Amino acid sequence: MVKTRRIITTLLRLLALGATLSATVVMVTSHDSADVLNLKFSAKYTNSPTFKYYVIAEAIATGYSLIVLFLSSKSLVWRLIVILDVVIAMLLTSSISAALAIAQIGKKGNSHAGWLPICGQVPKFCDHVTGALIAGFVAAIVYLVLNLYSLHAVLSPLFPVKP
Amino acid sequence: MVKTRRIITTLLRLLALGATLSATVVMVTSHDSADVLNLKFSAKYTNSPTFKYYVIAEAIATGYSLIVLFLSSKSLVWRLIVILDVVIAMLLTSSISAALAIAQIGKKGNSHAGWLPICGQVPKFCDHVTGALIAGFVAAIVYLVLNLYSLHAVLSPLFPVKP
Repeated sequence: MVKTRRIITTLLRLLALGATLSATVVMVTSHDSADVLNLKFSAKYTNSPTFKYYVIAEAIATGYSLIVLFLSSKSLVWRLIVILDVVIAMLLTSSISAALAIAQIGKKGNSHAGWLPICGQVPKFCDHVTGALIAGFVAAIVYLVLNLYSLHAVLSPLFPVKP
Repeated sequence: MVKTRRIITTLLRLLALGATLSATVVMVTSHDSADVLNLKFSAKYTNSPTFKYYVIAEAIATGYSLIVLFLSSKSLVWRLIVILDVVIAMLLTSSISAALAIAQIGKKGNSHAGWLPICGQVPKFCDHVTGALIAGFVAAIVYLVLNLYSLHAVLSPLFPVKP
């Protein structure tokens, strides 16, 4: 039972690592420019503080996932990992939510506030951001599942916990 | 030890309840209007899908906190509550992050995307939103502390867990 649990956990962590790594790379490489009324209009992720936060959060999660994959066989830090998993899941949830809110305005605009959508001008940038957001969303879901799975193991008397 | 733990948990839950309730009420009552170039410009939370999501998330958390306060003495659902606490913490983190991202644009605008700040026109609305965001931020932090506290109790051998 402990072995099955370890395999499932490792697979989930690998999936999360792939998702956060893709999210970081795709967001960082997103770039497009357009000429509107002779004005050069360049779109990249550093234009928005939210997207910068997104990249930083996904990069932190990537590094954490990588370190934990190498640590997983040692049980000394196991308790700390359960707690850090919750923190990383919140960081991922926070970054994807903030980036989604901005992307929604970029896509649809907000007529009440007079904010126009920009995806018509910079479609390549929008496609990249969409890809990065999908990857980040997958990562957040995987971390949520990972947390529920380890909490279930910790709390259920049917799964004896290795100290 | 179990008694101290219960008192601290109840206090944290009461604090979270107050914070999410204030966040909901303050956000729902936020309203301001301005005349810009003879155009009536009205700001309320329903203008933004993100703020609507914020209100729904904070309301769900309020209801959940209230129910759990009455259940806390019964230990049958204790395991479920530990897991639901994590889910609610993520919901709160998600809603506050998304709302903060929109509020940041409302306050500072984004010159790259051509989005102008709106707080100059509707200062009363902005003050209300700021208040709601501070309350929501407190609620998210309280739920994070609550989670870390109960995880610590579950994982530490020094604190025997009541089944």
